[in-house]
Amino acid sequence: MAKEFMDLAFEQAEIAFEKGEIPVGAVLVSPDGKVVVAAHNETEQDDDATAHAEILCLRRGGQILGSPRLADHDMYVTLEPCAMCAAAISFARIRRLYFAAYDEKMGGVDHGARFFAQPTCHHAPEIYGGIQEQRGKGLMQRFFEGRR
Amino acid sequence: MAKEFMDLAFEQAEIAFEKGEIPVGAVLVSPDGKVVVAAHNETEQDDDATAHAEILCLRRGGQILGSPRLADHDMYVTLEPCAMCAAAISFARIRRLYFAAYDEKMGGVDHGARFFAQPTCHHAPEIYGGIQEQRGKGLMQRFFEGRR
Repeated sequence: MAKEFMDLAFEQAEIAFEKGEIPVGAVLVSPDGKVVVAAHNETEQDDDATAHAEILCLRRGGQILGSPRLADHDMYVTLEPCAMCAAAISFARIRRLYFAAYDEKMGGVDHGARFFAQPTCHHAPEIYGGIQEQRGKGLMQRFFEGRR
Repeated sequence: MAKEFMDLAFEQAEIAFEKGEIPVGAVLVSPDGKVVVAAHNETEQDDDATAHAEILCLRRGGQILGSPRLADHDMYVTLEPCAMCAAAISFARIRRLYFAAYDEKMGGVDHGARFFAQPTCHHAPEIYGGIQEQRGKGLMQRFFEGRR
């Protein structure tokens, strides 16, 4: 786990915040520790319910690397991935998943679907949750308070 | 439920089969019963682990309709959606989900994550599974037998 990658994910989340998108950022890191792609949630901008930060990293990363399978790559996210993103991370065979805030309402890793613990999950990354938890939580709270 | 839409989903699945993609097809239908978009699995072609037929329908449908939310739209799929696609269908607020074969190994509706039954699921469609079950199952078996 390198702090610089989580910081980059938070930079992406802040960009989403400024655009009025739910502020989540993600970074895909290569096996030798280089950033492949960084993305933020773009669901409103793209008119695409699937355009979560993690999905965009996997989609764009796959295109950059020329394969849907990104074995030995790691992902950093500012929020616990939802079930959609957790399953996508599994399909792409991500090696390690680092995330900041837990998400009781929408999360699919430690909450709800708990995708990686299901018998229908055929690859699970190593998972490190709760990194910079307060920073991730604070960003989400600030966003939703501003919208009330 | 209109048989013509499921037939169209199977046409898409056959196209995927011919390309060597896992043969799954999906169709997005508007509230007044018109096809918005039909798609098939393109994960290998697009180098995108998230390019399942359902995800492509939601993504392209959202762009056509100018919104990530596709309320009152229905989806027809030749196979039980996985957890990734089930969550995406929920986020897009699809009204009715019709699918053919059940998928014990990868499904996320009646198997594994059972996404729509989770407390983290905030919208569930009406679900009609097992339509043309044998046709859906047969297509998958034929595909995987051919690859052995």
